[in-house]
Amino acid sequence: MAVYTDITEDDLIRFLAAYDVGALTSYKGIAEGVENSNFLLHTTKGSYILTLYERRVNADDLPFFLGLMHHLAERGLSCPLPLPRADGELLGELSGRPAAVISFLEGMWLRKPEAQHCREVGRALAAMHVAGQDFPLKRANALSVAGWRPLWQNSEARADEVQAGLKDEIAAELSYLEARWPKNLPEGVIHADLFPDNVFFLGDRLSGLIDFYFACNDFLAYDVAVCLNSWCFEKNGSYNITKGMALLSGYQSVRRLTAEEVAALPLLARGAALRFFLTRLYDWLMTPPGALVVKKDPLEYLTKIRFHRAILSSAEYGLTRQEASA
Amino acid sequence: MAVYTDITEDDLIRFLAAYDVGALTSYKGIAEGVENSNFLLHTTKGSYILTLYERRVNADDLPFFLGLMHHLAERGLSCPLPLPRADGELLGELSGRPAAVISFLEGMWLRKPEAQHCREVGRALAAMHVAGQDFPLKRANALSVAGWRPLWQNSEARADEVQAGLKDEIAAELSYLEARWPKNLPEGVIHADLFPDNVFFLGDRLSGLIDFYFACNDFLAYDVAVCLNSWCFEKNGSYNITKGMALLSGYQSVRRLTAEEVAALPLLARGAALRFFLTRLYDWLMTPPGALVVKKDPLEYLTKIRFHRAILSSAEYGLTRQEASA
Repeated sequence: MAVYTDITEDDLIRFLAAYDVGALTSYKGIAEGVENSNFLLHTTKGSYILTLYERRVNADDLPFFLGLMHHLAERGLSCPLPLPRADGELLGELSGRPAAVISFLEGMWLRKPEAQHCREVGRALAAMHVAGQDFPLKRANALSVAGWRPLWQNSEARADEVQAGLKDEIAAELSYLEARWPKNLPEGVIHADLFPDNVFFLGDRLSGLIDFYFACNDFLAYDVAVCLNSWCFEKNGSYNITKGMALLSGYQSVRRLTAEEVAALPLLARGAALRFFLTRLYDWLMTPPGALVVKKDPLEYLTKIRFHRAILSSAEYGLTRQEASA
Repeated sequence: MAVYTDITEDDLIRFLAAYDVGALTSYKGIAEGVENSNFLLHTTKGSYILTLYERRVNADDLPFFLGLMHHLAERGLSCPLPLPRADGELLGELSGRPAAVISFLEGMWLRKPEAQHCREVGRALAAMHVAGQDFPLKRANALSVAGWRPLWQNSEARADEVQAGLKDEIAAELSYLEARWPKNLPEGVIHADLFPDNVFFLGDRLSGLIDFYFACNDFLAYDVAVCLNSWCFEKNGSYNITKGMALLSGYQSVRRLTAEEVAALPLLARGAALRFFLTRLYDWLMTPPGALVVKKDPLEYLTKIRFHRAILSSAEYGLTRQEASA
């Protein structure tokens, strides 16, 4: 539920004068995103999203995020396009916050995605990886393996409040992954948070990817691992291999995974599950009771960590024999 | 910040099939209203608001609210129009909640209204009172004088936590108003909550009134008193007589206040200020710390109560001598 900063219509109209968007006719705070304040604008020219970047976002990262969206949209990826101001800048200031106007993407995120949607997501993810190859800016992934231990140290002492034995299990998991995390896989710009609520569909057609505010440079296959975690498990915790197969073959129809990437997939998937477990655990323990924020259950990701730990071969994710041994 | 119930796109598309709104292209939860969940829909035919009525709203009142909006819109008042379903009903059910689709009004509410806007609001309020005269349904005002003592009894014991002396001052105020509350003023359907965030403007032109979920039958002049409280005070607590004059003359350009209404205005304004003081006090004391809800300061309305208590004649609100002695 994200509207942290209200704006007056006078300030907004003055701010919009620098953009080629026509005259403002309405603006509504929307309950999307948790890091920023988002407004849906209607103008005489159409619909737009206005984002005010709140303090949780490092302002130094904004040129990377906005530049990336612009770069990807220019290469034909369907994603929000930041609009340039009259001075050519993608970023302005409103109500004391860095602010951007981005194109509005029609479409809806799927509360219950099916295998065919997983295939579309795999395809779009690969297309993003390909389109991002020549993006010149760099941003490290603060939530990759090197970031997990500091995050864990903030929650470790209280982890057993959530479930007995959690402290030891996660400590062991973390050490295991730190010791074995890959070093030489193909890298590039990854989305790093391509959950179902960040992918829009119109009917069964994927209409766009949104929310690039975790995007960074990292292993491309790690992004695939994030999607396996976020798209291919059922509510009951079981892995749906049909969805996994669809996602992976969709991805490979655009970009072929290397043999090294295929081999690393179980480890990357364990790492991705741990990453979301750790941020959810932290939020779970730190959010004051009564706060009107949806706390996501970290234990959903404990189940996934355990699933990945038991994987013997990447074929179990749904890679065909031919793909798995590529 | 109001999205209490999420909806799946499948359920929504099925629900919308009963309406003549075209094909859904997007829906976003919006941070407006505190009683209900509201979504802004885009379809191939335009923009709409979808409201899911949450448990705080009495479902028995919904035919009154929706029927009233329909009645007023038919008589030319610019307000949201509930769309009929294929079966002619204005109300359906979605995600286990009563739900309605209403027309989207372009416009913005003014964070800093000026006198000219107060005149427009006065005019629109009177137009609503006139248009509501032949609305057949009735709804008692649960937050009029008879409702204040029960409300007060929930907060009384802790009132001095907010400010020393509050308990005695409000008890005296309540008794005073109960003893003198008018009995025979012109009645009709009132909005009862026409604060600036419920009035939209496009430029300086009023484009619509929204949020009829406190509407009820009561003294028409009480609605004027609510608006004097909510539109004509400055942030520093002072009454702006220029705004008061504009609001009252705007109102009277459409519907003339009777001599009895004029005479009762200071008392009605005290009562209206007490009503908002009491609900704010209750929310202030009951909202858990840390909850992401904007708690409105009840003391803003204590200042207003005291202002109205010192009023000797309705002329002090900005009625011209001729109007005040009508």
